[in-house]
Amino acid sequence: MRGVLGLWYSRSEVGLNSFQTSGNSPGSGHTSRCRVGLLGFGTVGLALARRLAGPDAPPSLQLTHITDRRAREKQARQSEPLASLTWTDRFDDLLTSDVDIIVEAVSASEPASDYVRAALLAGKSVVTASKLVIAHHGPALLTLAERQGRQLRFEAAVGGAMPIVRALADSGDRLLSVDAILSGTSNAVLSRMDELGCEIEEAIADACARSYTDADPSADLDGVDASAKLAILCALGFGLRVSPAQVEIRTTSRIRPEDFRAARLRNGTIRQIAHADFDRERSLLSIWVAPMFVSRASIFAQAIGPQNAAVMVGAFGGEVAVTGAGAGGDAIAVGAIGDLVAIARDRAAIVPAPVLVEPKNISGLSDRQLAEAV
Amino acid sequence: MRGVLGLWYSRSEVGLNSFQTSGNSPGSGHTSRCRVGLLGFGTVGLALARRLAGPDAPPSLQLTHITDRRAREKQARQSEPLASLTWTDRFDDLLTSDVDIIVEAVSASEPASDYVRAALLAGKSVVTASKLVIAHHGPALLTLAERQGRQLRFEAAVGGAMPIVRALADSGDRLLSVDAILSGTSNAVLSRMDELGCEIEEAIADACARSYTDADPSADLDGVDASAKLAILCALGFGLRVSPAQVEIRTTSRIRPEDFRAARLRNGTIRQIAHADFDRERSLLSIWVAPMFVSRASIFAQAIGPQNAAVMVGAFGGEVAVTGAGAGGDAIAVGAIGDLVAIARDRAAIVPAPVLVEPKNISGLSDRQLAEAV
Repeated sequence: MRGVLGLWYSRSEVGLNSFQTSGNSPGSGHTSRCRVGLLGFGTVGLALARRLAGPDAPPSLQLTHITDRRAREKQARQSEPLASLTWTDRFDDLLTSDVDIIVEAVSASEPASDYVRAALLAGKSVVTASKLVIAHHGPALLTLAERQGRQLRFEAAVGGAMPIVRALADSGDRLLSVDAILSGTSNAVLSRMDELGCEIEEAIADACARSYTDADPSADLDGVDASAKLAILCALGFGLRVSPAQVEIRTTSRIRPEDFRAARLRNGTIRQIAHADFDRERSLLSIWVAPMFVSRASIFAQAIGPQNAAVMVGAFGGEVAVTGAGAGGDAIAVGAIGDLVAIARDRAAIVPAPVLVEPKNISGLSDRQLAEAV
Repeated sequence: MRGVLGLWYSRSEVGLNSFQTSGNSPGSGHTSRCRVGLLGFGTVGLALARRLAGPDAPPSLQLTHITDRRAREKQARQSEPLASLTWTDRFDDLLTSDVDIIVEAVSASEPASDYVRAALLAGKSVVTASKLVIAHHGPALLTLAERQGRQLRFEAAVGGAMPIVRALADSGDRLLSVDAILSGTSNAVLSRMDELGCEIEEAIADACARSYTDADPSADLDGVDASAKLAILCALGFGLRVSPAQVEIRTTSRIRPEDFRAARLRNGTIRQIAHADFDRERSLLSIWVAPMFVSRASIFAQAIGPQNAAVMVGAFGGEVAVTGAGAGGDAIAVGAIGDLVAIARDRAAIVPAPVLVEPKNISGLSDRQLAEAV
């Protein structure tokens, strides 16, 4: 797919290895602020810009540039201080600017991975909220970031404000399994159906009205969205290279009000669950996304609206759970700003790219799990 | 209090600023392992040593030294590969060794902060599981670590395997409040009383038998343990310098079986809750630890045994929750190994010390909260 931004992004103009000297040194503290440029000014971009230019902005960060293909039109609608930042409709302007970090927040139809690659090549660190960029190109881009001496962070790509990426990346346990609600949109739709007893169409309209989804939430409901996020978690938690296409998915789009009534009789409800467990001895990964019966007392049933939730089981520490808002501009901005703060804290950090292996065998739902699938 | 280790630790022998050259460089990947020395070989030290010398040890870490005042006796009881590591009863041997990181896991009666300071001065990075060290000396020690170009990490000091330290330290939100179960011991005692309807003495004996506590759990039950952890969370989440002594605490040690029966009639139970909220405009911190009524559906009621749980409310992302095992050697080891892996990933990282301010006003339980206190 040729992106709209492609019209104004010419790769040849991007200097390779145009390193900036933006490391910090012992004792430098918070004196020099990290310059941030925003690529894409949609729902997420707007939420990010308001935070970074607002009264509570992290002191280590300074938003200086906003790049969007409709920059002039969008700038005209902003008030101060956003209006007087540097706005441009050329990606090259951002690449050749003095920003230290580029936040990639373009729409799903754009070639986001090309932008991330170009930004790293231009010597910028990058924060992205795109699950597709990381699920499909994460290892290559992280290797590039390491070579460039720059960072690529993606907390918001999985779980929004739910801190699961750093929980898995920095875990001191050996992960055995993860079960999670990873699509805020699907969860908003399902919990709304549960609440009102309504048809799925009505619940989808409600999720649209609350900006948890675009007009077409089929990628969310079908499990495609969650499968990309689950592939990322497998890389972080198991060190496995998994393609989203290898994840068995069962659609949530055919759930009916009577399914909820039946679940309620069993003292539970229905949620879209993403599951992965890895048997290291047999190198067998079981991985799927499906609408499942969950008991009323589980943290999954208690995830309402766009909440995400995850239960990770470790060989030594047992269960660790995290929950948080998984959709909406403000939630995504929370994840992305956490990444920005981490990069600003140590701009000279070298983050080694992960070493991933492929599982020998991949399976989907087991018979026992199929019995709980809806 | 003069520690037992003090007998064999002579400060004058420790070289100031004896830096090691242990930075990594782009592309170095996982080739050079980070050398780890263990200070203290009790419950936590044993769990750590087994993990680090076991078949699933993180490839970036190599345990080389174990220091304990009864080193010979304890070494004699170990089998391979632990038995053939370098064991010593002299802290100085560890300080002058080639280890990159020292894990401080001495018992609560030792002058742990002196050891941490000496280790940093000797050019080592330090991982500690001691809430008291961080609550009382965290800012000074983190400043020393930054000056030394070394790291001081303490994920296991709060919540054990529950990843709350990094969730707050790297949060992209503005924290409004935190409610948490922070004492695994107290929670094991309370949930046991709830389960069996027994007196507190019987529940304490059970917690001792499961190694969640020493023979005397009064610091846990009285709320002293949780108040130190809560002070750490206030530094991380609000940027506030709070002394544990400023936290209003109400003891959990007088809870009786009939309190649980009364709570059950209201469809809930009793948990030791640590609470802090900060009104930035008035610079008013409300902070307390007390046994509270919690509804059966809350994640607090569902925390059983040594589980910890925390709900953090942010101004932008709303509620984020984390749960995990908060007591026991394996749980503490999970938190500490996460820190070790993070340090090994980027040994050259400079982590700026936090800038903390004191709240103008501190209050305890409000009237509304008092009504729910047990």
